[in-house]
Amino acid sequence: MPTRVNAAKLQQLVSDLITAAGVPREDADITAYCLVKTDLRGTESHGTARLSYYYLHRVRQGVINANPNVQTVIETPTSVVVDADNGLGQPVTYRLMQRCVEKAKQSGVCCAAVRNSNHFGAAGIYALQALEHDMIGLAFTNSQPLVLPTYGRKRLLGTNPIAFAAPAKEERAFVLDMATSVVPIGRVEVYRRRGEAAPSGWGADSDGLPTGDPDRIMNGGGLFPLGGPAETGGYKGYGLAAMVDVLCGVLAGAAFLTGVLPPSTSQTSPSNVGHFLAAIDIDAFRPLDEFKVEMDSFIRQLKESPKAAGQERIYVAGEKEYLEEEERLRLGIPLNPRVEEDFRELCDLLQVPCPF
Amino acid sequence: MPTRVNAAKLQQLVSDLITAAGVPREDADITAYCLVKTDLRGTESHGTARLSYYYLHRVRQGVINANPNVQTVIETPTSVVVDADNGLGQPVTYRLMQRCVEKAKQSGVCCAAVRNSNHFGAAGIYALQALEHDMIGLAFTNSQPLVLPTYGRKRLLGTNPIAFAAPAKEERAFVLDMATSVVPIGRVEVYRRRGEAAPSGWGADSDGLPTGDPDRIMNGGGLFPLGGPAETGGYKGYGLAAMVDVLCGVLAGAAFLTGVLPPSTSQTSPSNVGHFLAAIDIDAFRPLDEFKVEMDSFIRQLKESPKAAGQERIYVAGEKEYLEEEERLRLGIPLNPRVEEDFRELCDLLQVPCPF
Repeated sequence: MPTRVNAAKLQQLVSDLITAAGVPREDADITAYCLVKTDLRGTESHGTARLSYYYLHRVRQGVINANPNVQTVIETPTSVVVDADNGLGQPVTYRLMQRCVEKAKQSGVCCAAVRNSNHFGAAGIYALQALEHDMIGLAFTNSQPLVLPTYGRKRLLGTNPIAFAAPAKEERAFVLDMATSVVPIGRVEVYRRRGEAAPSGWGADSDGLPTGDPDRIMNGGGLFPLGGPAETGGYKGYGLAAMVDVLCGVLAGAAFLTGVLPPSTSQTSPSNVGHFLAAIDIDAFRPLDEFKVEMDSFIRQLKESPKAAGQERIYVAGEKEYLEEEERLRLGIPLNPRVEEDFRELCDLLQVPCPF
Repeated sequence: MPTRVNAAKLQQLVSDLITAAGVPREDADITAYCLVKTDLRGTESHGTARLSYYYLHRVRQGVINANPNVQTVIETPTSVVVDADNGLGQPVTYRLMQRCVEKAKQSGVCCAAVRNSNHFGAAGIYALQALEHDMIGLAFTNSQPLVLPTYGRKRLLGTNPIAFAAPAKEERAFVLDMATSVVPIGRVEVYRRRGEAAPSGWGADSDGLPTGDPDRIMNGGGLFPLGGPAETGGYKGYGLAAMVDVLCGVLAGAAFLTGVLPPSTSQTSPSNVGHFLAAIDIDAFRPLDEFKVEMDSFIRQLKESPKAAGQERIYVAGEKEYLEEEERLRLGIPLNPRVEEDFRELCDLLQVPCPF
């Protein structure tokens, strides 16, 4: 049984560790909030499990700027672009989404972009911020190349996620947060560790040909975009991943394609990741209450629809994460033993008392 | 060999036919432009082949309003919602995208929505409009239910397309125009006519289980969302299709899910389709020329990347359509014999001289 940790306690620890690494407390608090919120939602792959590898290690090496001078590059009543000065992705994006929402309250719609940033965790977290203001939120990011373009054999695109959140009235909000690849690379790694073949359509070998061999996908091969190979619609996932890169890389003025450097320990140059955000004030389109009532009806129709043979439940985007969050707020967040070990090491290293 | 028809001549004929059915000339001209432009781009499934079945038949039956009183429901400097009054989808959407672009020139960003509309053809046409103004354009629409939600067995979602266009400098623009299902239903029909099994992952039978039998997919079954069944990521395509419906149906104040009625000859109630559009002024984010130069580099990197074994070319979204358009402008649009026959019948019926 993994240790279960209270979310608030974990968040405090994560903030203390980030602060001990030289990041200002306010930025550390936001980053800790984002990572623990992601753990609460059950997306461990993008939560505190990455604290050491993706963030703290790089902050301590000076590869991520602990004290960035974030600057507004250009601003209109409906748009903002900021330069993150190679700081952590979470604080700059969280603050920008707040600004985006405030601007949308005035203008109806606002789009915002970040350049010169780093891995920002789970995109869904920023889309969720719009819900607190009864708005629709969108958040995209580009990321290190892991995905092959259709008919290619070189990793050119990130798993470039799309997140979209829209509020409902009595039902839980609709919250889509999806990579534009079939699966994240971590899922392939799970099969490799088990010594099992990965399901067909997840990835290709170094010739760009479909393979179920996790080793070949991981070494020299790559992930297929959503849809898999061309004949099952993979060119669509490829198109979506490229669209995300146009907005987050090209439009934001950040790196794109292979220009986005991986957040690996061996990488000493800035990643120059880009993000793109949007907030839509529902009242600019129709009365908010009408919208929320109709969202309830939309969600209920999906959930109450007849199930496929052998299935008991149809989920709506975000539903599983809400269920997970409710449980984890009650019972605590289960810590993987390896992650727990990481925490102990970080506490030792940064001289922060370990609460577990 | 199919007859090849000059695009301008075909467009004139289509406009004459629509006008003869009682639609004002200006609306007919826009509709004809959209349909023929779609044929030029090689997307026959959404072009003039549908003139009779989807549009003229319904206009003549009074199911589509030939003389709609299109009204602005609500407008802010960054948003517009219009009620199409059950008119043709093309003229209202084309004009609204023009308005959206003009507003984005003033405001930086504009989003727009249409309610109470009809099938608007190919979404890409409206995204393309933004390119003429060196802007980024987006166009979504909902549509008649054909797609199963993950773990469901009832058709709830349309093939709800996503179109996104971004300009380049010397390269052709990036133009994504994709259904959020694996394939359109017409592709399954092609396999049925040939008496062949459809590729796995395209659709399910009436129990919601994957099948390659085109008959079972067409009758009582349905299409899988992009990604196919759950294990190959189909829940992502389901999420995208639902996102499009939230914007086009719920936010626009149009019908959604099974509320969107099919454009079939037996259907006598308004379809109440909804559309969602957006225009982004690139200069609000970075200097336009910088953006276009970087788009060239983005596109070239994709195209020049190493090819998978057995492949000679990597395409960028929209490239095939541009190549097709260049050829068809030169050689004419090939008319399928059945479509040619449809045209002759329509000409007889509406007393329009047939030019071929």
